[in-house]
Amino acid sequence: MPERAIGVFDSGVGGLTVLKEIQRLLPSEDLLYLGDTARVPYGTKSPATVRRYAQEAAAFLTRRKVKMLVVACNTASSVALLELENHYNLPVIGVIEPGAKRAVSVTRTGRIGVIGTEGTVKSGAYTLAIKKLAPDADVVALPCPLFVPLVEEGWLEHPVTRLTAEEYLGPLRHHGIDTLVLGCTHYPLLKNVLQQVLGPEVILIDSAEETAFAVAERLQRQRCVRDAAAAQPPQFFVTDVPERFQRVGGEFLGRPLPKVEQVCLD
Amino acid sequence: MPERAIGVFDSGVGGLTVLKEIQRLLPSEDLLYLGDTARVPYGTKSPATVRRYAQEAAAFLTRRKVKMLVVACNTASSVALLELENHYNLPVIGVIEPGAKRAVSVTRTGRIGVIGTEGTVKSGAYTLAIKKLAPDADVVALPCPLFVPLVEEGWLEHPVTRLTAEEYLGPLRHHGIDTLVLGCTHYPLLKNVLQQVLGPEVILIDSAEETAFAVAERLQRQRCVRDAAAAQPPQFFVTDVPERFQRVGGEFLGRPLPKVEQVCLD
Repeated sequence: MPERAIGVFDSGVGGLTVLKEIQRLLPSEDLLYLGDTARVPYGTKSPATVRRYAQEAAAFLTRRKVKMLVVACNTASSVALLELENHYNLPVIGVIEPGAKRAVSVTRTGRIGVIGTEGTVKSGAYTLAIKKLAPDADVVALPCPLFVPLVEEGWLEHPVTRLTAEEYLGPLRHHGIDTLVLGCTHYPLLKNVLQQVLGPEVILIDSAEETAFAVAERLQRQRCVRDAAAAQPPQFFVTDVPERFQRVGGEFLGRPLPKVEQVCLD
Repeated sequence: MPERAIGVFDSGVGGLTVLKEIQRLLPSEDLLYLGDTARVPYGTKSPATVRRYAQEAAAFLTRRKVKMLVVACNTASSVALLELENHYNLPVIGVIEPGAKRAVSVTRTGRIGVIGTEGTVKSGAYTLAIKKLAPDADVVALPCPLFVPLVEEGWLEHPVTRLTAEEYLGPLRHHGIDTLVLGCTHYPLLKNVLQQVLGPEVILIDSAEETAFAVAERLQRQRCVRDAAAAQPPQFFVTDVPERFQRVGGEFLGRPLPKVEQVCLD
């Protein structure tokens, strides 16, 4: 088992931020990454549809004998995690619980903001996860549907992005939050603008790093850490043609992507 | 044959603008509408993937014995029309040719702008269709990826939308176009902002109305016009759960949507 790879999936490129952190923390682990680019985004789709897509992604990765599944997508983690855990006899790590844990550990006032896709916010998964750890926390969760297309457009510090952030984050600023969970893997790319709009005193939580810690901890607990000097380069799979994934994904990963293979899930 | 319904499909709600015009022009025709909401959008996906989705949508509608297929999606019309025409023994009407025809008939200077999704613009379909009718036309086509999410967010006259339009349309204004083809079924909802940014002298072409004329003309030519006082209400099908389609679709159609049925294509 320890020799097997870790399987990571997301609706598209966003989960590469999680992959990057896992690589940094666990350089000996082999990684498979699947981006469901033919059906991206998940954030505007119903829980039932996202569950079906997550099941198909998990089935693809488990056929390749992974030792662990990482759901590197907030929307899929929000609505499909329990089902995947029940269905597969494997550790399944999502991005919600690690982010919630971190938010609870850094907040001083207990006023925590969460931003995410429509699907993530509607699911209430972050509020539930935070309240489980800190029942008195005051959580405000808001959907920010334009942030993903703005990141994909590359307008990371554009006036349009700033104006959009002011509109979306106004109620959170008004609420006096001291911590903001970036509940979508695209949002860390907007950190500069978000920090400027909210002010330097608000702490931004990026689930990617926390999720990598959760992965490392679980591997250790299950005695599944790979004992090797260095891993193979990650293998990348997508469901649409690779060009766009390679182009946008390179920005997420901070370096060019190697060969990406197109596969069919449905 | 004349008694059969017309089948209309789009990636989501946008094609409802086309359905609305067909209903207005041909009130006796029965209509089936399919929105592929589980896989929306098509505009960022590859031609091969959009072709596969269009084939599946067409297969669904033809199983229901329609007399004509209307591809009420610019991206699918750009890359899949010919293939659908070759595959089905039915008239297939797309939205590109009607829009191109109208643009050529109204331009005075021959400088025509086209805006659309990444997929539509990359395909070059509008430029080709316009040049076929007016070889000397000077066509500039530009992708505007944020317009669809802005419409879906309901920010039809928001400062963010205006700023985005100024950024996208700057090169077209600079080029001195006198006609702009709205090459995506979402864009007519942004008419006010687009007109303000471009100035009143630029003519905006909405393919929906032109497509309805093309449908009427083809039905007459094939002697397939339905001879009845009034049609049944249209039947609506979607591939994700209907709630979001019903909510956003109501704004496109200008009235509440009736019952919408969820179906599976893949």
